[in-house]
Amino acid sequence: MAGQQQYGAGIWHFATYVDRYATDGYGPARSLVEMIDMAGQVRDLSVVDINFPFADPSLSLDTVEQALARNNLSVIGITPEIYTRQFAKGAFTNPDKGVRKLAQDMCDEAADVVRRFGASYVKLWPGQDGWDYPFQVDHRAVWQASMDGVGELASRHPDLKFVIEYKPREPRVHMSYDSVARTLLGIEKIGLANVGILLDFGHSLYGGESPADAAQLAIDHGRLFGMDVNDNLRGWDDDMIAGSVHPIELFEFFYTLRKNKWEGVWQLDQFPFREDAVAAANSAIDFLKHIDRALDRLDFDAMRAAQEQQDAVTALGLARAALFGG
Amino acid sequence: MAGQQQYGAGIWHFATYVDRYATDGYGPARSLVEMIDMAGQVRDLSVVDINFPFADPSLSLDTVEQALARNNLSVIGITPEIYTRQFAKGAFTNPDKGVRKLAQDMCDEAADVVRRFGASYVKLWPGQDGWDYPFQVDHRAVWQASMDGVGELASRHPDLKFVIEYKPREPRVHMSYDSVARTLLGIEKIGLANVGILLDFGHSLYGGESPADAAQLAIDHGRLFGMDVNDNLRGWDDDMIAGSVHPIELFEFFYTLRKNKWEGVWQLDQFPFREDAVAAANSAIDFLKHIDRALDRLDFDAMRAAQEQQDAVTALGLARAALFGG
Amino acid sequence: MAGQQQYGAGIWHFATYVDRYATDGYGPARSLVEMIDMAGQVRDLSVVDINFPFADPSLSLDTVEQALARNNLSVIGITPEIYTRQFAKGAFTNPDKGVRKLAQDMCDEAADVVRRFGASYVKLWPGQDGWDYPFQVDHRAVWQASMDGVGELASRHPDLKFVIEYKPREPRVHMSYDSVARTLLGIEKIGLANVGILLDFGHSLYGGESPADAAQLAIDHGRLFGMDVNDNLRGWDDDMIAGSVHPIELFEFFYTLRKNKWEGVWQLDQFPFREDAVAAANSAIDFLKHIDRALDRLDFDAMRAAQEQQDAVTALGLARAALFGG
Amino acid sequence: MAGQQQYGAGIWHFATYVDRYATDGYGPARSLVEMIDMAGQVRDLSVVDINFPFADPSLSLDTVEQALARNNLSVIGITPEIYTRQFAKGAFTNPDKGVRKLAQDMCDEAADVVRRFGASYVKLWPGQDGWDYPFQVDHRAVWQASMDGVGELASRHPDLKFVIEYKPREPRVHMSYDSVARTLLGIEKIGLANVGILLDFGHSLYGGESPADAAQLAIDHGRLFGMDVNDNLRGWDDDMIAGSVHPIELFEFFYTLRKNKWEGVWQLDQFPFREDAVAAANSAIDFLKHIDRALDRLDFDAMRAAQEQQDAVTALGLARAALFGG
Repeated sequence: MAGQQQYGAGIWHFATYVDRYATDGYGPARSLVEMIDMAGQVRDLSVVDINFPFADPSLSLDTVEQALARNNLSVIGITPEIYTRQFAKGAFTNPDKGVRKLAQDMCDEAADVVRRFGASYVKLWPGQDGWDYPFQVDHRAVWQASMDGVGELASRHPDLKFVIEYKPREPRVHMSYDSVARTLLGIEKIGLANVGILLDFGHSLYGGESPADAAQLAIDHGRLFGMDVNDNLRGWDDDMIAGSVHPIELFEFFYTLRKNKWEGVWQLDQFPFREDAVAAANSAIDFLKHIDRALDRLDFDAMRAAQEQQDAVTALGLARAALFGG
Repeated sequence: MAGQQQYGAGIWHFATYVDRYATDGYGPARSLVEMIDMAGQVRDLSVVDINFPFADPSLSLDTVEQALARNNLSVIGITPEIYTRQFAKGAFTNPDKGVRKLAQDMCDEAADVVRRFGASYVKLWPGQDGWDYPFQVDHRAVWQASMDGVGELASRHPDLKFVIEYKPREPRVHMSYDSVARTLLGIEKIGLANVGILLDFGHSLYGGESPADAAQLAIDHGRLFGMDVNDNLRGWDDDMIAGSVHPIELFEFFYTLRKNKWEGVWQLDQFPFREDAVAAANSAIDFLKHIDRALDRLDFDAMRAAQEQQDAVTALGLARAALFGG
Repeated sequence: MAGQQQYGAGIWHFATYVDRYATDGYGPARSLVEMIDMAGQVRDLSVVDINFPFADPSLSLDTVEQALARNNLSVIGITPEIYTRQFAKGAFTNPDKGVRKLAQDMCDEAADVVRRFGASYVKLWPGQDGWDYPFQVDHRAVWQASMDGVGELASRHPDLKFVIEYKPREPRVHMSYDSVARTLLGIEKIGLANVGILLDFGHSLYGGESPADAAQLAIDHGRLFGMDVNDNLRGWDDDMIAGSVHPIELFEFFYTLRKNKWEGVWQLDQFPFREDAVAAANSAIDFLKHIDRALDRLDFDAMRAAQEQQDAVTALGLARAALFGG
Repeated sequence: MAGQQQYGAGIWHFATYVDRYATDGYGPARSLVEMIDMAGQVRDLSVVDINFPFADPSLSLDTVEQALARNNLSVIGITPEIYTRQFAKGAFTNPDKGVRKLAQDMCDEAADVVRRFGASYVKLWPGQDGWDYPFQVDHRAVWQASMDGVGELASRHPDLKFVIEYKPREPRVHMSYDSVARTLLGIEKIGLANVGILLDFGHSLYGGESPADAAQLAIDHGRLFGMDVNDNLRGWDDDMIAGSVHPIELFEFFYTLRKNKWEGVWQLDQFPFREDAVAAANSAIDFLKHIDRALDRLDFDAMRAAQEQQDAVTALGLARAALFGG
């Protein structure tokens, strides 16, 4: 199986970043075309997820398409930026009806870009939908609006997939779509076949989930539409290089995908604030390939037998033998 | 409304405890009857939740009933001890079919005790159902068994309620019923009207939830069958005195209950390892009464208006005015 | 005692913010003079801490001084911006000697501004000094450089105070000056009388400390030179309104200050991303005044007696009686 | 270097455990002699740390010595049980002078056992010294007593080493010796050459430290007298099998030890609640040997060069090449 796997990345992997302290950014701003050209330098990267609208409003889809083509990249998803200033108090859940409409409109446009690029889905990351303070919101209303917003959108575009990328928090102190179970609960309520989950390994990890368990649950509900990986210290969405901290749980995550014959792109969602972006992507993909080969080596039958007994020592031994060699 | 509210406690509030270090316990062991007599000394306590089977197998239900009667206590729930040695690798999810049967049998017996005492529910706290290590379990199998175990049990006793008390972890490193959303997802799948949630404020808090939001979600699914309170430092189930650390979120939790006209017992689930148990219960109930009165003072309309705008400062001001007085 | 207490704020309380998602900021940029004029609208605010260099290089100290004067504000500290792009890999610990020099120069300039404004100290917040990844740094070298950087600076300006504001993390995944104990250990090694700590209540809280204990430790080492408050959910530096989540630990913190007769400004370090900045400051200061009055009501002798017995229930009862009234 | 390394374990690794739920224990109780015989079955284990006093008061030192001898085990340390019922409110910091005396006496006896067995140190783990609630203690008094207790003890036995094993919390909600920096600060104040640190990798990890950084700091203060390893999910002291979750940080920890030419026993502090204790120890030691060999493969010069530039990607690549092979 190794060797055929497709790798992808959010195009923001190749951006520079600002935060509330380094307001001048961790490097000079890059245009989308520059980012695409950098993505093209990564070994084995073949698909990207692109934010929309473009920072430069004069940038045409044709120009983007040409940049992608010359770098042998295709588009897996479009991520509407429903988390910028105007959406500071929410996109789907904004108290202002007009702002909710703006969010829907932006997502509609993103849907058109998905069609144009033949991408797989519109990715919804409603990072500003939630709350900060005790007593700040009516929790029923916020959750209902979270579901309604996605439901209305997905209903208007039955030809497309919409994936929700849940996350515990940031930038809101608490996000409405905070976990795999909450998101599945909402999706079941929405009741549309074209709404699913994009599972971010790091979000799952720092939300206190086992990413392998989260993936299994989403698969069992028929809703694992996409995924991406990175790493963190389990307390925040650090978006570090995949496998740099939690290689064993990362291995278990991909073991779960293979066991379930889940076939899709292995994407990166990393933020290399202070690192060379191309080097950081290569570092991650090299390790993902190591994992792919380790899965070839792993004794799946013995693992199944150990798990049937909850035999942690044997299961760990099998995983280690495949992952660490020797 | 203040003054009519009923207060309860898990009878273990009046036990002494062991942990992995103080293996000789934080005090001499107490019999169930002694605990009931201590519970009777707490001002305003009227109901208790009792573990089953009793530590002393020769203790009769009649004797327990008499002890309850002389202390003016009634029973709200029975908690089968499906988390002791024999269930170390799970009750409903144990790899051994025979052990799973033992768990079902124990719960059946608990159901009979519920009937005998005219209690409200069997409380299920499957603290050993889950996993510890990466790769230890087949996540699909464990989750399916978690749902099947509760479903089979509740099907056999359609005349009774069964409440699941979810918790992120401890004693397992990860519990299957780990959050409100996961538990509701399971309950929806189980599909029985007599299965609900007992929401523990502290479990919700240290699981990264907003307890108010968790309560609202359970209510909106028609599954909030019970609740209890305590406090912690958001990193572990410290089971401290209610309101000792998070009075504002506790206030928001009860605000949510009253707003939804949820009427039920306000229970304590505290573990006063080093404190006088009666004093710790009185301390908590005194503060719950303060909250009850503060709810009488709170301007619900103004709060609703502030929340409609996500106006955190105004909402906080209203909550403070009611809770802190002057 | 209530009524005489001075209140202050970091001037950034009145800024607008960017983060890695809302790169267009949570509002239109504000000039320093606009921020000062906003600070002037807060009831009872008399001192501010100001970042340096100013965002607008053409802004003169005279203009700033006039703005302060017309708002009846004085300056308590100057915070050199040793955490912007050029310092992305550290100020005092930067691998590049030239960058370390830039940091020293910027701090020297800040020292001059302190003198000019008659402020109390240069505040050092080396947020980029630390590391992100396992294996990224030589820990001995980084820590030594952290101490050397502060030591060299403070040696050059024996007439001024330098305060280190420690913090567990952000923007680096781990900061060198991460805790009260680590900072005191470094300060003892530096061995200069003019280096102390500015204790941020929220940093202490989310670093797993008891802020009251941290304050006591810093006082006992003679190094508590300043402090500020805010609140968070104990997992991140949320910089929320003081007392909005942890009023009891905030009360214990100020109890510790009063008990030790620590007299200094009660400052705010809040980031009201989505709130009205003036309202957020008023909300916090109103609560601080409530705490100040509650300290007047608190029975210190009874508290001392309860603490001598580690009698948590009695101590909590005393604190509640003073803080919640009734 | 690989092959000469000595491995050890706390003898409690071979005990069975109780917790507050499984009060009947995770298995039948084992005698100390049984534990020693189990330790003897572990490949490559040569030293143990033993709790004192023995659970069975009639057990003689001679009998223990014989059991050790027939299993080719020697004693590295003695751990006085200053965390059982009588010390529930502290050993060195207990409010009751008589209890503080009991703790000192128990440690004195432990010192005699150290001499008798030719062990390296008395290990102090004051797990009950600290606090649970806000306002519960006078923080100055508790910290002073923490230092005084260790200082008085170590002064009475200048011929022996005393090592403090710090830990953030459990069983107290907060422990006085909570971190490497706090412990070093206390040790410097105590001012005795025979007091040092036993660094537990897991305690460091879940306390938010980088264990490698903590080790370096203790070494630079000349106080790293011992260490042990295990693993956890960074939120609690899970005492899982070493390397099962954080192999890369474990590797960095041992890299730091070798770089500093720190030579001592690599010990285990694991609690295999539900696992076969011998298998869990073998699993850990096998992985430690893998790490030992990986250190032989690691390019130290290249690592140093990468760290001088804070080049995380290159450093990670070097670590991975050594640890994961191929």
